[in-house]
Amino acid sequence: MARFRKHDRMPSPKQFEPASGTRDFLAAEFERREYAFSTIRAVFSRYGFQPLQTPAFERLDVLTGKYGDEGDKLVFKILRRGEHEATGEADLALRYDLTVPLARAAAAYGSQLPSPYKRYAIAPVWRADRPGKGRFREFVQCDLDIVGSSSPLSDAEVVLALYDALDALGVPEFRFLVNSRHVLFGLLEAYKVPDELGPGALITLDKLDKLSPEAVVTELVTGRGLSPEMARGLVDDLTAPDSVARIRSELKASEGGQAGLDEVDRLLELTKGAIPTERIGFAPNLVRGLDYYTGNIFEWSHRAHPGRSRPAAATTASSAGSAARTPPRAAAPWASNASCP
Amino acid sequence: MARFRKHDRMPSPKQFEPASGTRDFLAAEFERREYAFSTIRAVFSRYGFQPLQTPAFERLDVLTGKYGDEGDKLVFKILRRGEHEATGEADLALRYDLTVPLARAAAAYGSQLPSPYKRYAIAPVWRADRPGKGRFREFVQCDLDIVGSSSPLSDAEVVLALYDALDALGVPEFRFLVNSRHVLFGLLEAYKVPDELGPGALITLDKLDKLSPEAVVTELVTGRGLSPEMARGLVDDLTAPDSVARIRSELKASEGGQAGLDEVDRLLELTKGAIPTERIGFAPNLVRGLDYYTGNIFEWSHRAHPGRSRPAAATTASSAGSAARTPPRAAAPWASNASCP
Repeated sequence: MARFRKHDRMPSPKQFEPASGTRDFLAAEFERREYAFSTIRAVFSRYGFQPLQTPAFERLDVLTGKYGDEGDKLVFKILRRGEHEATGEADLALRYDLTVPLARAAAAYGSQLPSPYKRYAIAPVWRADRPGKGRFREFVQCDLDIVGSSSPLSDAEVVLALYDALDALGVPEFRFLVNSRHVLFGLLEAYKVPDELGPGALITLDKLDKLSPEAVVTELVTGRGLSPEMARGLVDDLTAPDSVARIRSELKASEGGQAGLDEVDRLLELTKGAIPTERIGFAPNLVRGLDYYTGNIFEWSHRAHPGRSRPAAATTASSAGSAARTPPRAAAPWASNASCP
Repeated sequence: MARFRKHDRMPSPKQFEPASGTRDFLAAEFERREYAFSTIRAVFSRYGFQPLQTPAFERLDVLTGKYGDEGDKLVFKILRRGEHEATGEADLALRYDLTVPLARAAAAYGSQLPSPYKRYAIAPVWRADRPGKGRFREFVQCDLDIVGSSSPLSDAEVVLALYDALDALGVPEFRFLVNSRHVLFGLLEAYKVPDELGPGALITLDKLDKLSPEAVVTELVTGRGLSPEMARGLVDDLTAPDSVARIRSELKASEGGQAGLDEVDRLLELTKGAIPTERIGFAPNLVRGLDYYTGNIFEWSHRAHPGRSRPAAATTASSAGSAARTPPRAAAPWASNASCP
């Protein structure tokens, strides 16, 4: 009988590798991950969040149309079975995130759930991205949501639970960045960007952490139809060293923007004392989740390479925000949600 | 703002239900299941089994051809993405069990794994069955395997670990049934069933726990081509109250069958003392996993409804056995494997 020998490292032939963008976890790494997940679970439970587990796949119609065109393209679709297989059609799809399944479940079990419903989920999701280095098509999301409350305390509670979880995991040098969708729209208003150009402009502004300011200005003008003055002004304000002060001043021209700023300040106020001030701050250039966040947006980041000096080297590990994307039938607005890696 | 009210039970509209054959787990049930899984994990770890986690899907070619026609039909296939979506072809599929992924991983990481490699996995699998009452298309399997040992101790170790896990879970009145593929083939030999009819005959005999003895005899004759004498003799021997004594006597006519009986007796001997004798026994009518088991086959069952007197009311919860289905490239035979619910 042939036996494996330890340390007898043969190159592993491609045919035995897991499918592209997925990973096998042998014992040591499995245990490390389980330890991290159980640490996170323990913190979330302490904050009164309840676990919810939904199936790996949903009916296709539940998933599509929720993520925009780009997202829909990245959904792994499951072929119909039996005689219907020949049609080449799909009727099911692997979940792309944990939020749409939550919305479905909240609608299905609303009457059996506490209100507000504070739930967490730590589970794999699947995206048919062409996986770049260090990115995967199967990866674990860790979501924290409060359904059925619009209290500002809910945002604070989510941020505090996330902070404690990161702290318990021993993540070094992480920082929360906070913004509000109202701040972003207020800024567009202050620069007199026509309403119909606003959403496109924000999608481009979201690239400020990847592209140069020049490239963003160009895209705003040629791709999004903004005047060169608007584009230049917005990008200058968002990238200046005194960006926060500039934005605070600009927003005086917009009632909605001022309200957004108050929203951000309230969140910072509510977490004061519990989160060191150097670990959380207003980040007017943070643009995320435009399709569903309605109020605060927050994100935590940590420097992947501590040697680098630019915060642009930060690894975005989580972004979240208040969302009023109403679950299908439940009328309760979404208070807060957050995902961690 | 509308809020959910507790106990305000509305019928849940179909559109918010999880996909057919899948379930959502709210907090209480999630926690109960997690507790059970962690209890099982703790026992398996104590026996030196290591966790292995593989992705939810595999390349289609890794999965197909491993389960026979029936199994292949039950695999959820994932549609190609992007420009290839229009072809209606699949290139990936959700795992159907945890054994084929183990075989792939053992081939990929063989040199990094201990030998023998004792692994467990507790994870969902997906089968495109039309789900009957109480059956699901997404369900958790809990597998225990030893790769790279053909020692009879390995079978005993798997049975003991399973016994301890069931005991730790507080499962009442469970019992292990043990048989050997060699016993089954020895029986066919004793009844002079032609070799080419053997595998088909065993598939039909496997239905003895679902069909009446008469129906099984009929299928053996009309469907499998056995003579009425062979069919009647086999079914009588396997269903008689003194079945065990009859089989032991019949097997004297078959060298392979006698070897199978020795195999069963050795397993019973090795677990003696650790497992009460009323909890484990030779079950010559146990036919399972014909496509891959080569030596011992075992199964544990418990009475779903303790009030019923017939063991036919037993719920088969796990079946397992020794398998020499060699992993793709690793030459090491499979010692034992077992799945629990």
